[in-house]
Amino acid sequence: MTGRIICFGELLLRFTTPGHERLMQSPKFDVHFGGAEANVGVSLARFGHDVRMVSALPDNPFGEATIEALRAQQVDAKGVARGDGRMGIYFLETGAVRRPSRIVYDRANSVFANTPATAYDWPKLLEGADWLHLSGITPAIGPEPSKAARDAVRTAREMGISVAFDGNYREALWSAWGGNGPDVLRDILGHADAAFINERDIALILGETPASRADAMTRAFEVFPSLSAIACTSRAQTSVTDQTLTGELYTREGHWTSKPHTMSGVVDRIGGGDAFAAGILHGSIEAYGAQRSVEFATAASVIKHSIPGDWNLTTVREVEDAMSENGLDVRR
Amino acid sequence: MTGRIICFGELLLRFTTPGHERLMQSPKFDVHFGGAEANVGVSLARFGHDVRMVSALPDNPFGEATIEALRAQQVDAKGVARGDGRMGIYFLETGAVRRPSRIVYDRANSVFANTPATAYDWPKLLEGADWLHLSGITPAIGPEPSKAARDAVRTAREMGISVAFDGNYREALWSAWGGNGPDVLRDILGHADAAFINERDIALILGETPASRADAMTRAFEVFPSLSAIACTSRAQTSVTDQTLTGELYTREGHWTSKPHTMSGVVDRIGGGDAFAAGILHGSIEAYGAQRSVEFATAASVIKHSIPGDWNLTTVREVEDAMSENGLDVRR
Amino acid sequence: MTGRIICFGELLLRFTTPGHERLMQSPKFDVHFGGAEANVGVSLARFGHDVRMVSALPDNPFGEATIEALRAQQVDAKGVARGDGRMGIYFLETGAVRRPSRIVYDRANSVFANTPATAYDWPKLLEGADWLHLSGITPAIGPEPSKAARDAVRTAREMGISVAFDGNYREALWSAWGGNGPDVLRDILGHADAAFINERDIALILGETPASRADAMTRAFEVFPSLSAIACTSRAQTSVTDQTLTGELYTREGHWTSKPHTMSGVVDRIGGGDAFAAGILHGSIEAYGAQRSVEFATAASVIKHSIPGDWNLTTVREVEDAMSENGLDVRR
Amino acid sequence: MTGRIICFGELLLRFTTPGHERLMQSPKFDVHFGGAEANVGVSLARFGHDVRMVSALPDNPFGEATIEALRAQQVDAKGVARGDGRMGIYFLETGAVRRPSRIVYDRANSVFANTPATAYDWPKLLEGADWLHLSGITPAIGPEPSKAARDAVRTAREMGISVAFDGNYREALWSAWGGNGPDVLRDILGHADAAFINERDIALILGETPASRADAMTRAFEVFPSLSAIACTSRAQTSVTDQTLTGELYTREGHWTSKPHTMSGVVDRIGGGDAFAAGILHGSIEAYGAQRSVEFATAASVIKHSIPGDWNLTTVREVEDAMSENGLDVRR
Amino acid sequence: MTGRIICFGELLLRFTTPGHERLMQSPKFDVHFGGAEANVGVSLARFGHDVRMVSALPDNPFGEATIEALRAQQVDAKGVARGDGRMGIYFLETGAVRRPSRIVYDRANSVFANTPATAYDWPKLLEGADWLHLSGITPAIGPEPSKAARDAVRTAREMGISVAFDGNYREALWSAWGGNGPDVLRDILGHADAAFINERDIALILGETPASRADAMTRAFEVFPSLSAIACTSRAQTSVTDQTLTGELYTREGHWTSKPHTMSGVVDRIGGGDAFAAGILHGSIEAYGAQRSVEFATAASVIKHSIPGDWNLTTVREVEDAMSENGLDVRR
Amino acid sequence: MTGRIICFGELLLRFTTPGHERLMQSPKFDVHFGGAEANVGVSLARFGHDVRMVSALPDNPFGEATIEALRAQQVDAKGVARGDGRMGIYFLETGAVRRPSRIVYDRANSVFANTPATAYDWPKLLEGADWLHLSGITPAIGPEPSKAARDAVRTAREMGISVAFDGNYREALWSAWGGNGPDVLRDILGHADAAFINERDIALILGETPASRADAMTRAFEVFPSLSAIACTSRAQTSVTDQTLTGELYTREGHWTSKPHTMSGVVDRIGGGDAFAAGILHGSIEAYGAQRSVEFATAASVIKHSIPGDWNLTTVREVEDAMSENGLDVRR
Repeated sequence: MTGRIICFGELLLRFTTPGHERLMQSPKFDVHFGGAEANVGVSLARFGHDVRMVSALPDNPFGEATIEALRAQQVDAKGVARGDGRMGIYFLETGAVRRPSRIVYDRANSVFANTPATAYDWPKLLEGADWLHLSGITPAIGPEPSKAARDAVRTAREMGISVAFDGNYREALWSAWGGNGPDVLRDILGHADAAFINERDIALILGETPASRADAMTRAFEVFPSLSAIACTSRAQTSVTDQTLTGELYTREGHWTSKPHTMSGVVDRIGGGDAFAAGILHGSIEAYGAQRSVEFATAASVIKHSIPGDWNLTTVREVEDAMSENGLDVRR
Repeated sequence: MTGRIICFGELLLRFTTPGHERLMQSPKFDVHFGGAEANVGVSLARFGHDVRMVSALPDNPFGEATIEALRAQQVDAKGVARGDGRMGIYFLETGAVRRPSRIVYDRANSVFANTPATAYDWPKLLEGADWLHLSGITPAIGPEPSKAARDAVRTAREMGISVAFDGNYREALWSAWGGNGPDVLRDILGHADAAFINERDIALILGETPASRADAMTRAFEVFPSLSAIACTSRAQTSVTDQTLTGELYTREGHWTSKPHTMSGVVDRIGGGDAFAAGILHGSIEAYGAQRSVEFATAASVIKHSIPGDWNLTTVREVEDAMSENGLDVRR
Repeated sequence: MTGRIICFGELLLRFTTPGHERLMQSPKFDVHFGGAEANVGVSLARFGHDVRMVSALPDNPFGEATIEALRAQQVDAKGVARGDGRMGIYFLETGAVRRPSRIVYDRANSVFANTPATAYDWPKLLEGADWLHLSGITPAIGPEPSKAARDAVRTAREMGISVAFDGNYREALWSAWGGNGPDVLRDILGHADAAFINERDIALILGETPASRADAMTRAFEVFPSLSAIACTSRAQTSVTDQTLTGELYTREGHWTSKPHTMSGVVDRIGGGDAFAAGILHGSIEAYGAQRSVEFATAASVIKHSIPGDWNLTTVREVEDAMSENGLDVRR
Repeated sequence: MTGRIICFGELLLRFTTPGHERLMQSPKFDVHFGGAEANVGVSLARFGHDVRMVSALPDNPFGEATIEALRAQQVDAKGVARGDGRMGIYFLETGAVRRPSRIVYDRANSVFANTPATAYDWPKLLEGADWLHLSGITPAIGPEPSKAARDAVRTAREMGISVAFDGNYREALWSAWGGNGPDVLRDILGHADAAFINERDIALILGETPASRADAMTRAFEVFPSLSAIACTSRAQTSVTDQTLTGELYTREGHWTSKPHTMSGVVDRIGGGDAFAAGILHGSIEAYGAQRSVEFATAASVIKHSIPGDWNLTTVREVEDAMSENGLDVRR
Repeated sequence: MTGRIICFGELLLRFTTPGHERLMQSPKFDVHFGGAEANVGVSLARFGHDVRMVSALPDNPFGEATIEALRAQQVDAKGVARGDGRMGIYFLETGAVRRPSRIVYDRANSVFANTPATAYDWPKLLEGADWLHLSGITPAIGPEPSKAARDAVRTAREMGISVAFDGNYREALWSAWGGNGPDVLRDILGHADAAFINERDIALILGETPASRADAMTRAFEVFPSLSAIACTSRAQTSVTDQTLTGELYTREGHWTSKPHTMSGVVDRIGGGDAFAAGILHGSIEAYGAQRSVEFATAASVIKHSIPGDWNLTTVREVEDAMSENGLDVRR
Repeated sequence: MTGRIICFGELLLRFTTPGHERLMQSPKFDVHFGGAEANVGVSLARFGHDVRMVSALPDNPFGEATIEALRAQQVDAKGVARGDGRMGIYFLETGAVRRPSRIVYDRANSVFANTPATAYDWPKLLEGADWLHLSGITPAIGPEPSKAARDAVRTAREMGISVAFDGNYREALWSAWGGNGPDVLRDILGHADAAFINERDIALILGETPASRADAMTRAFEVFPSLSAIACTSRAQTSVTDQTLTGELYTREGHWTSKPHTMSGVVDRIGGGDAFAAGILHGSIEAYGAQRSVEFATAASVIKHSIPGDWNLTTVREVEDAMSENGLDVRR
């Protein structure tokens, strides 16, 4: 089954230091594209779904290149507005051993941040969609994206389109323009069907401190009546590149946990959460059932950790291979 | 003789496509540092002078790396303020054949642009200096840099410090914040001793259209009574990488022209004007006399065209070698 | 005006030695996509036309990547068949000074060569098109592509679609499978409206030796009654990287020549002819008139010589800039 | 003691994605040489033996470069025929975490595949040899290589030269031309003195399913009377780059197992089996005895896992160091 | 508190193979700067101390570049003599799996080795210093550096400057010129306040074989009356890139051990000991107390293992972060 | 016809800055092999002759790699002695525009320099040879190489082997050890049959100042009675990368000049003289006659200017192509 998903959020350039070097250690950067919602969109397009990106990009070679990259991944970019201005950047210093990776953002005043909420014609942009996906970063970017995010969610609700929301609470973004993050996220979650949040997000959004993850989930289902599923991952790290990843899926009916995946020699952890979210949405669209969905989503996320860049350049078949007991030796 | 020069202006990161590629053609960038005044400062420090940079940089790894790079070039960076925010970037696509190089700026809202004019304690920053150097870019960056530039020039004048000014009229920067470029530049030139401007700059600043370069220079000397020297280059291009460069120096006493330098296989044209300006200032400090100064400055600029990056990583000895008839074969 | 163009031909991987190295001198290759018709298609898509590629590619990551790259360039790849097998490769050793560039082909037995002519449903593939473009390479690849090329041309003719044909006579390809090149090309040219051929091609195809280019063109118009335009370039080389390019356009009404373009420091000459052909087709679709068309096409080809890879990653605006007297200095 | 070994098999170009990237993720490939028998040959030459390669390569720069590389490794390439055609290629995408490495072959229709069996003058090529080594890939490549492999083995037998055979059963190669793999491999194994096969190979070749590795070995010794030694490895993988390797050697007299080697951060697993085979042959030639042979071979294979490319660029001394308890810290 | 430290020793160029390749496997080298004392100096300068390097470098672009690099790191290079000659080089082949890294030295006859002891005016060079740091490599380089090292230590002692000494016993260097290493090191240790030595160094220097590390330390405190602290690390390696590091600090009052740090995916182990030494000196200057000092030093060393090159490009804040339980996930 | 040539001289590692960068501008080096006599040897081996290198190299991975590279080029390296010590290095900064390329040598105290003259058993090493080739660098390296060079020449003479000598007068090398260059070179030239020297070399060697090149040649033929041919080139440079090269050949019978070759976009000028010398020797061995020899040698040298590294990686066929009027367009 093919779903039609609208992803709304900012696209970023990512500049990465080569070979575990510190930022500016040697004068080279590798370039990738990022942005939480685009990451989810690319995954879903590669899983065979119709994905449309709604965003705003500069009318310059970087906007052009981003759209080319989306098109290459079969993500429809017709809903991407173009305007004067800049594209947000983030710099990634890839950590190692016990030195964590580090991100330096340079995303303020982007075309996306400055595009007025009225520039998005939601009834038209959402037409024919099954899902609207966005993250907590989108409304945190500024007052206009915040308004646009709420408009989008409300319109989707009215049009009977399911809403998927990835918490991604970023204090620094909210405080930069004085937005009230918890208020806005509560509003959005009030309309969401699926959420990618953990107990930390829930605590921040509700201003409460749940005793456990299970309690937090229970509270979230109480407070947000439209929510039917919450998914999150647990990540244990014995070193920056040695981790164990487990996925969890909570519904009002129960709670499912994936098998834990030991990941050693992690290549690129960025986008791992987005790969997981895309896997859950894929499972939902394909009606995989809860256990298979969380296994698929976790295996998809594990694959992401092996691929440079934010995007999970994989396929359903490869994820299924990773879910199986096929072994890890060379495929010929 | 060693001069003490203060350079005031913004420092930029430069991201360059590798091997004549279009912007974002392949996912790599080479990194250099730029900024017109820093370019002049690095040249002068390499020519043996005491150079202090006055600027503002972010309190992050990019600001840190920039200061390290200045220190490496023996440019004193103690006058560089640090603050929250971003560092301006420019992207350079290196042209070839008949496709011109192209610069995409992403410099708005930088720490430098946002640093208030009052943050610079000019009497202290200029203490002991022989020259203050700045370009027309500095006041064009925004109202605060504009005010700071004028304060700097006025204070220098009061302290008996000579002022060198490089026209560098950038319409896009002025119009971005509604600054009156010609007014400000006329004010600054009214205090300058040396200017790096050509007939085009003069026309824009005076709002007049001189009949010739010579007429323009005559008018400039009339309008700006403190000016004692104006220098500029002529660049003829038969292809993007094949050029001829000639330097000219005008004073109230006369007019000197360098021998023309044929440049084929140009590696990097950016910073060529700053290298020339540094050469003229060096000649002035060393009392080379007009002809030798303009020959030195032009040869210095020619060397810059062979070096990747904005900075003219050369020495007085190499410039003198380029001025000589020593031939171009391998030096062992 | 936007044209709808179908390009039919093989897509190749191109592996290029870095930095003027000999083949296998150091263990690195840069990768690009090639194929004469795709090169034309990418140009036309970038000039704003609707372009559909008809081809056949392997069902493996290379076929996938090629389709992604076409999509990125807004070339519709839905008409690209997929099958078991390999993708043709060509290796490019970039020459320098007086050592010519060298191509080593490894394209035999590709999916394209092995796809049966019956696999292409031409009436459907050509539906709604204004032009069909193909080159003399397509029928030279093997008996099935040869048949497919003739089917395509005949069907286009029947559907009232104009046919553009680029001679590109490759003796080695024809003799590899014993095809009668001149026969086939005469057949195709008999249905073509526009041809990209010079006196050498004409001589080979007609088995005659015209006394001059003008005579050859006259003969071609006599022999091929549907032909309304023939275009070609003249290339003079004083070194591998120093060339002069002139375009010519012949119709039954007259003969137009572009201004000659001196090109020094040529970065990549491959695809220069395809860029020219695309320029002529663009001029025809846009009804530029003969002189403007040949100037546009030649300027487009000149830009190609500055860009690594087969594809002319440019825009109408940049070509027009190259046609103007705007100078070659850095664009800010 | 120095042995004289003839290796018969195809040489391939290997194109590897850089830095764990997916195939065609960024436009670069690293190049190495491959081919199971050449891998063994290079190891043995580096261990001090006289190695001659018998193969067929194209008469182009790739054939040339391959021969240069063999010569550099002191493998005699005079027995390598040259002909028109192509050289087989394989593309390697280096996996990570839990994403297995992946090989895409493009080796059909190579010069080697097309060289007639009669082109090899075995009595002359084998003259003076102690061992003939080949793998199950050689006869799988096509009818002519299949015939050539059997001729080689039969001739060796007649000349009293020992035959070493590495199973390497590749279903895809056999089915591509309809060869009967099990028949051919049984024939070859019927003449072999040493075999590098495990229970899976034995099952495929004999069409039986032994209950255990030990049973399989017993059966192999029954069916193939000339066999005096069988060696194989066991590889356990907790992640793509974290593995444990153990070597085993079976003779009619007994069974020896190496100590297990924990390998974390595996750099390149390709060629690990060939490195092991070369180690066993070296041990046999040097009369190391069974235990030392299997320890040496396993340690050699472990070293291979740390070196980019197919070839085990090591020395006897380094293998012995790896067998010892000398620790893993920097050698100065 | 800011300390003033003089580091005396040779600076080296380090050429490293890319990506775990063997030396000269592909024709590329990455370049870093090395030298045990400079490594310590760079760490201390980055921790906020005033560091002056005393050394000798060639009067060529390599000497120039080294001084620029020191200046960038805020290490004062005014005490670096310049002379005719060469700069020592070391080549590093980065190991993997169970193949140890390997260093090939090419450091003989350097400017540093040839600079006469009399060239160093110690009373002036040491003026105002709190600590003199040097390693056992400095006196091992040749008779003049040996004499200079002893002069430096003696002068420091007379001026009331504390002496820190890192054992670093290099047999090959001593035997190259016939120096009596143990004698010289005993002399130096006789004046040292802090030493970075382990039981192996002590055994070599004293010509005794202590029963345990603790015994060795006891003996060292007996023999060298001025010593107040001895620090060293224990390194356990399960593979070349998987190690456990523990630091220890011995004083006449007691013995402190850091928590063990598991390090997987080690990027660059070179300079790990120097990073530890710098951490201990920093702890001493800052009066951290023994436990915090050894924790700080060990965490600093752990960070070094994640950074390419000899220098520990970190900060006090990052080391403190590594000492904490803040987790290893991405820092935004 | 195949000649047997012995080349005697030092082999060097060459480290080159990437992309016209200054030395140490960014932390990367490309690596090639150099050495005047090896350069000649590689050319001749590629032209089909039997070449044996006599030299001395360190017993380390660099010596190993050099021998592998020679073997790859089919240069017999059995006459290369191995010993403890270092390999000479030279650093090349590739110039551009009007900034000349620059070489920094680090070749003192190499294994070659330290190998005693007695280590070379000339009667054995020269056995069966037609030519001995060496340059003026060999005896300049130190007293032992100087003695060895003279021994070699004398022995060759006695054995009836022709001697080819390339002047290459390097003042810095001679003065480093106080050798009397002119004396030694006069001695060697007194035994030479062919010399690669120009008027500058002749003036230095004879201590006379000839009025013209023709006079110098006349004098050389007078003073050195065994000389039958002198060849040299003239190089005119309009920029570092734009040059014109002409070859000249003088015999006692006459004087021949090649056509001048315009070279633009020169990639690598190093080894151009050695490529010319090899071309002359090849012409002599093949009995091309004077005019064809000088044309061949000059064309060979021109090709060298297009290839990175010291070695002229070309073939007789390519040189003949460059001598022809075949044009410079892509060879398919």
